[in-house]
Amino acid sequence: MSAPIKLKLTIAYDGRAYQGWQVQKIGTGVQGKVEEALAQLFPSVRRIRGSSRTDTGVHAVGMVADVEIPRAEFRMTPRKLPLAVNAYLPEDIRIMSAVRVPGDFHARFHASGKQYRYLVWSHHAMNPILREQAWHVPVALDVRAMRSAARLIVGRHDFRSFAANHRYHIEDTVRTVTRCDVRRSGSLLTFVIEGNGFLYKMCRGIVGTLVQLGRGRFTEAELKQMLEAKDRRAGGMSAPAHGLVLWKVFYRRKSGDPADPRADDE
Amino acid sequence: MSAPIKLKLTIAYDGRAYQGWQVQKIGTGVQGKVEEALAQLFPSVRRIRGSSRTDTGVHAVGMVADVEIPRAEFRMTPRKLPLAVNAYLPEDIRIMSAVRVPGDFHARFHASGKQYRYLVWSHHAMNPILREQAWHVPVALDVRAMRSAARLIVGRHDFRSFAANHRYHIEDTVRTVTRCDVRRSGSLLTFVIEGNGFLYKMCRGIVGTLVQLGRGRFTEAELKQMLEAKDRRAGGMSAPAHGLVLWKVFYRRKSGDPADPRADDE
Repeated sequence: MSAPIKLKLTIAYDGRAYQGWQVQKIGTGVQGKVEEALAQLFPSVRRIRGSSRTDTGVHAVGMVADVEIPRAEFRMTPRKLPLAVNAYLPEDIRIMSAVRVPGDFHARFHASGKQYRYLVWSHHAMNPILREQAWHVPVALDVRAMRSAARLIVGRHDFRSFAANHRYHIEDTVRTVTRCDVRRSGSLLTFVIEGNGFLYKMCRGIVGTLVQLGRGRFTEAELKQMLEAKDRRAGGMSAPAHGLVLWKVFYRRKSGDPADPRADDE
Repeated sequence: MSAPIKLKLTIAYDGRAYQGWQVQKIGTGVQGKVEEALAQLFPSVRRIRGSSRTDTGVHAVGMVADVEIPRAEFRMTPRKLPLAVNAYLPEDIRIMSAVRVPGDFHARFHASGKQYRYLVWSHHAMNPILREQAWHVPVALDVRAMRSAARLIVGRHDFRSFAANHRYHIEDTVRTVTRCDVRRSGSLLTFVIEGNGFLYKMCRGIVGTLVQLGRGRFTEAELKQMLEAKDRRAGGMSAPAHGLVLWKVFYRRKSGDPADPRADDE
C-alpha cells in the first residue's frame, strides 16, 4: 500500500461568523467547515491539523493546515485542489493554495514563526468600510510613543503579563517577538507583530497595552515593569478580536515551504 | 435676521445597503439618511447638496456635502457636529468631519477634482476578508501592460467610450483625468484615478477595460482606438460597483478647503 499524499493548505477566512479555528463542541469552527468540504471530494479525510488556534472573531489570510489524502482518492494535481474544495465552502472561507509536502510535515510543530496584523482606526468617527475589520479608538494616539514602546516588546521575554492567564502556571510562557511595527496611513494604524510563537490572546494584549500607552494611560517605564511583572493583572487591556488577522505562518525550507522546489509538485 | 451657518460635511459610507448617494423614489439613498439624522438636531434642515452621485453599492470615505443651518438652531461648534449627528445614523454611514465655510460654498460646483480608488483581487481564490470591497478577478493580470495603458487614459479626452451611454448625446463628455495609477501589493491591485470630473460609470469603465487589457483581451493600440471612437459600444466592460470608493473631493482653498484657516472656525 503506497503512502498517502501530504498537502500543506493555506487558508483565509473572515472570522465574524465563527467561534475561531478549532472544532468546537458548541458553535462552529473554521477547521470543521474545511474538513466537511474536503470530505466531499476525499471521503477518507476526517481531520486536518492547523498551525494555530485563532480565537472567536479573529480573521486569517494565511492560516496553514496539513492534510493526508489516500493516493487512491487524490485524482487531481494539488494546484487544482483549491478550486475544487472552494466550491464546497461558504464564501467566508477559502483555500488560497495547496502544495505537496514531505510525509512528515506538521503544520504546527514545524512552524518557525507567525505574523499577525492588527488594524486600529484612530479618529473620532469610525470608518464604516472598516467597521468589521478594525478596532475603533475614538481619540488621537501618540504613534511616536507607541513605536518607541514597541521596541521593548521585541526580544525574548516572559509574556505572561500580556496573555490570557489560563493554564500558564504550568506552561512555559517565554516567547521571542522578532518584530513589532506600528505603521500609519492617515487615521489607520497597522500593527505588524512577528514571533516564534504566541500565547493565548498575547497579540491582543500587546496591541491593547500599546494603544493605552498611545492614549497616555501608561508610560514606557510602566510597560517595562509590566513585562517584568510576569502577571496578567499587571498588563494592559486586550484589544478586541475583530481587528486581528493571522497574516502568515513561516516554515523553514525543509519543512515544506512552497519556495522549496522539493516540496512543491506543480 | 442673520445669515445661516454654512457647513462642509465629509461623509463616509459602506455602500452595500444603499441605492447610491442620491435620494431615490424607490430604495434608500445615503443622502436621505444623513438628512433625516440632521433634522433630528436641526429641525429646519431639509436638504443637503452632495459633491457627487455615487451609484448603487459604491462606497465612499470622502463624499462632501454642504448644508445650511439657521443660526438659532446651531447651538454647538462644527467640531462637535459629527459626534452628535452620528448618534442618529446607522453604523454604515458616518460624518467624518464638519467645517464652517463661506455662505456661497457649493459642494458640487466648487469641486475642482475627485479621487476614486478601485480594489481588484487577482488570484484564483477570493480573499474572504475583501469579498465585499474588491472585485475578484480569478486570473493573473499583466500589471506592467496595465500601467503602460493607464498612461493613455491620463489627459483631456472625450470619455464617452468608457461611460454608461445615457443622455450623452446632449452632454459634454470631455473630461481631464490627471492620474491613473495601478498599485500592487501581492494579489491586491489598487487603481487610483483622479480627474476634474467623471461621467456616469466612467471610473468603472476605465477599470474594467484596463483589467481586460491585463488579461490579454485588448492591446494598448486597441485601447487607444476605443478612446478615439467616442462610442460606448467600442469600450470594454464595466467593473462591478462594490470595488469602487469615492476617496476624496478636492476644492480650491477659497472654496472651503479645511486647510484654509478662513473657512474653519475650530
